[in-house]
Amino acid sequence: MAATSWKRHHIISLSDFQPFEYDAVLQTAASFQEVLSRRTKKVPALQGQVIANLFFESSTRTRSSFELAAKRLSADTLNFAPGTSSMTKGETILDTAKTYLAMGTDIMVIRHREAGVPLAIANEMDRLQTRVGVFNAGDGQHEHPSQALLDLFTLCTLLDPEKPRLSLLQGKKIAIVGDILHSRVARSNIWSLTASGAEVHLVGPPTLLPKAFADFVNGNFTGSGGTEIPRKLFLHWSLEPALENADFVMALRIQKERMTSHLLPSLREYHWRYGITGDRLQHCQPDVKVLHPGPVNRGVEISSELMDDPKFSLISQQVTSGVAVRMALLYLMSSGKA
Amino acid sequence: MAATSWKRHHIISLSDFQPFEYDAVLQTAASFQEVLSRRTKKVPALQGQVIANLFFESSTRTRSSFELAAKRLSADTLNFAPGTSSMTKGETILDTAKTYLAMGTDIMVIRHREAGVPLAIANEMDRLQTRVGVFNAGDGQHEHPSQALLDLFTLCTLLDPEKPRLSLLQGKKIAIVGDILHSRVARSNIWSLTASGAEVHLVGPPTLLPKAFADFVNGNFTGSGGTEIPRKLFLHWSLEPALENADFVMALRIQKERMTSHLLPSLREYHWRYGITGDRLQHCQPDVKVLHPGPVNRGVEISSELMDDPKFSLISQQVTSGVAVRMALLYLMSSGKA
Amino acid sequence: MAATSWKRHHIISLSDFQPFEYDAVLQTAASFQEVLSRRTKKVPALQGQVIANLFFESSTRTRSSFELAAKRLSADTLNFAPGTSSMTKGETILDTAKTYLAMGTDIMVIRHREAGVPLAIANEMDRLQTRVGVFNAGDGQHEHPSQALLDLFTLCTLLDPEKPRLSLLQGKKIAIVGDILHSRVARSNIWSLTASGAEVHLVGPPTLLPKAFADFVNGNFTGSGGTEIPRKLFLHWSLEPALENADFVMALRIQKERMTSHLLPSLREYHWRYGITGDRLQHCQPDVKVLHPGPVNRGVEISSELMDDPKFSLISQQVTSGVAVRMALLYLMSSGKA
Repeated sequence: MAATSWKRHHIISLSDFQPFEYDAVLQTAASFQEVLSRRTKKVPALQGQVIANLFFESSTRTRSSFELAAKRLSADTLNFAPGTSSMTKGETILDTAKTYLAMGTDIMVIRHREAGVPLAIANEMDRLQTRVGVFNAGDGQHEHPSQALLDLFTLCTLLDPEKPRLSLLQGKKIAIVGDILHSRVARSNIWSLTASGAEVHLVGPPTLLPKAFADFVNGNFTGSGGTEIPRKLFLHWSLEPALENADFVMALRIQKERMTSHLLPSLREYHWRYGITGDRLQHCQPDVKVLHPGPVNRGVEISSELMDDPKFSLISQQVTSGVAVRMALLYLMSSGKA
Repeated sequence: MAATSWKRHHIISLSDFQPFEYDAVLQTAASFQEVLSRRTKKVPALQGQVIANLFFESSTRTRSSFELAAKRLSADTLNFAPGTSSMTKGETILDTAKTYLAMGTDIMVIRHREAGVPLAIANEMDRLQTRVGVFNAGDGQHEHPSQALLDLFTLCTLLDPEKPRLSLLQGKKIAIVGDILHSRVARSNIWSLTASGAEVHLVGPPTLLPKAFADFVNGNFTGSGGTEIPRKLFLHWSLEPALENADFVMALRIQKERMTSHLLPSLREYHWRYGITGDRLQHCQPDVKVLHPGPVNRGVEISSELMDDPKFSLISQQVTSGVAVRMALLYLMSSGKA
Repeated sequence: MAATSWKRHHIISLSDFQPFEYDAVLQTAASFQEVLSRRTKKVPALQGQVIANLFFESSTRTRSSFELAAKRLSADTLNFAPGTSSMTKGETILDTAKTYLAMGTDIMVIRHREAGVPLAIANEMDRLQTRVGVFNAGDGQHEHPSQALLDLFTLCTLLDPEKPRLSLLQGKKIAIVGDILHSRVARSNIWSLTASGAEVHLVGPPTLLPKAFADFVNGNFTGSGGTEIPRKLFLHWSLEPALENADFVMALRIQKERMTSHLLPSLREYHWRYGITGDRLQHCQPDVKVLHPGPVNRGVEISSELMDDPKFSLISQQVTSGVAVRMALLYLMSSGKA
């Protein structure tokens, strides 16, 4: 399963992911996707290993996907419930992680409200010379690598179900629409999609995609950095130029909190200006597809009709891909430690 | 295990259950009951299958019973915790169900405060041409089929442990006592017990068993309908005629909310008029048995002494039957899809 | 695994533990500790058995440790979440336990805010002539036997990793520091450590270690009682005499509630008088080690530097020992029923 050259045993950010790594994930996920179509959807790959889901920020969808991925690899899972935790007793996050380390956890899947927590834990695990792998399942407004990799897998398997690979997206136009500023999904996707050679067009209201973001992005992507990947990234404040001839449209979730903090006038206004509808897809490629990381506010980010139209919507495939991609990542992380 | 003729792959309501289906459940549950008496209480029947417990309304007892049934069939389970869910993020219930579908769930066990939710999800799963089975674990004041089937199994195994079957209850007199109006347990039991040919006597205070209920019941049971089963159902507002020569007495749980909404004067008054006690059982058959779906308010629906008396109480057997019957239903649903 | 002479099938208190029982736990835990160092950290010992974690008082750390121990013995686990339970529906604790009994639970692990609940449930299980084992995972301010046994295992494996045994602690000096009065951890440790022949020195502020406690302790330990073990127990209100030449220092957790109830002036004052620091360890044996049941309030019970110093801190080893010791106890309880 392409694990031979894999070295990475933490999954924290896609900023330094190399093309061969993306391809290893895509290929491994394709093998597991095949397993999932069998009646007995399990492999013994991680039997006897312990995967702890430390979700300091609650999430049913993502936690269930990770839990299912772990179970299908025959690992044992531990769920950390923040409400009933020692956190309220004044223990630090690093001490909580060290407790799970001491119990014999092999991989920690961590979601936290604050950016940088998974990296801090990964650094501590390395400093202590453990073999524990840390998996960032979403940290603040920073990154959500498994979401971006399942999006990538969804797109690439659509283009070549047999042999999904990064280069399939070369030259494609992909629009990412919505609250770019606060989105860890957008940040991770920007790294993976630009790495493929696709043109990535970010579009959203000026409050959620400020000019300063452009500078930040360009500084990161066209400036210095370890990777030599040339990246094509564009910013727009109106939907039309972003959708023009787009191959794929990825709508981001709007958090209701943005209204109370006056960054958005109303959901109705948002839908009127940035909502994806059948009409608006007319400007895209005829076989355009729509993605959304979920959960969707129906009639806000995407019209209800479009969401249920299998001709356009890839939303269900994204959820399905999520299990296969997380299986692949857990498997690769585990092999990366050997 | 009698699964050959089983076709049903959703368990939503007992209103259209046929005698051969009741017998298939009883027979299959009897086989599993035998498995549960072994030291290793597991069978590999659903290995690699995924059962999602979507309990939008919380319940420890029923969820644990379903979870244990699933684990003893070697299935993997996912628990949906409403407090930490996407529901608070504005996702619709159908979208939540579709997310679990896309993850690869084989059977969804659904409990919801509102009647009709499991049926709506089952219809959507069929419309999408999936093979997912939907199991109603209690919907509003509508039905709770697995509770009625475990009650049935408890009664029939008492009468013939080797070969429990529906016809054993023919001619028996069964009293159901309490808040009939709001009880999904009563509704499901009415279907199964009358189907057996037993005489079912409903008894409760007029506020919880209004005259209109009689019309509704009679309209449903003696009027038109797909089933040709003749049903014997009687209503009473006082306990005595219902208990007279009864073979079985099923007390329903009183919700404390009924007091605040002025449907009941007090728990003490309720116990005085409708509570089951040793004295009152004198009017029943000498070997009368008492059932209760639990959790019991001791000293309200049943006197504390009676509840702990193994000569009369079947309450523990009901809980034990619950695991075997749910194993049987999950197994049959799964076979019904092939 | 030394289980041949084991008879005890409940673990409620260490007050009547015999030396051969301590040694059986230590030896069995050592075998399991070895299993945990393998890549596949599982044994089939309790396959098909059901272990219910009934945590009426919430705890992530202890519940995860028990859950992991159960999974590594290949048992199925059920978690009882108090927030979503029937308890709020007015069911008694004994009725909840009987429900889990009727479902087919083999071992109940019980934590409760009130002392005596696990014993009451164990008595009821015996009265009903069941074979269910009850495991006290912490009851009020009474006992927490698995914590004391994991502390014992941590100390004894340090002294002889190959053959940990009670007698290794004979003549050692062990200081237990902090809120002795309210600590179930202290109470259980007093039984096990004095049974080994160690000198146990209790030290804490007069409000948390009143003179009356001394009478109580002496009455229990040097007076009558079933056990003939001579016990060496000393009380101090200042840290110095307790630490003098100590081989081990066990700091207890300070509950923040003690401040609001005026039993402690401030955390800073507490640390100044009773906090364990590198400086204060100078008075101990040169190879002194520090324990804490966790979670630690850094800088209160123990200085932050000391806590992270592997030369002195046994805190991580305690957590690791926890899984092996709980595996051993579950395994022995299970064998004790045969």
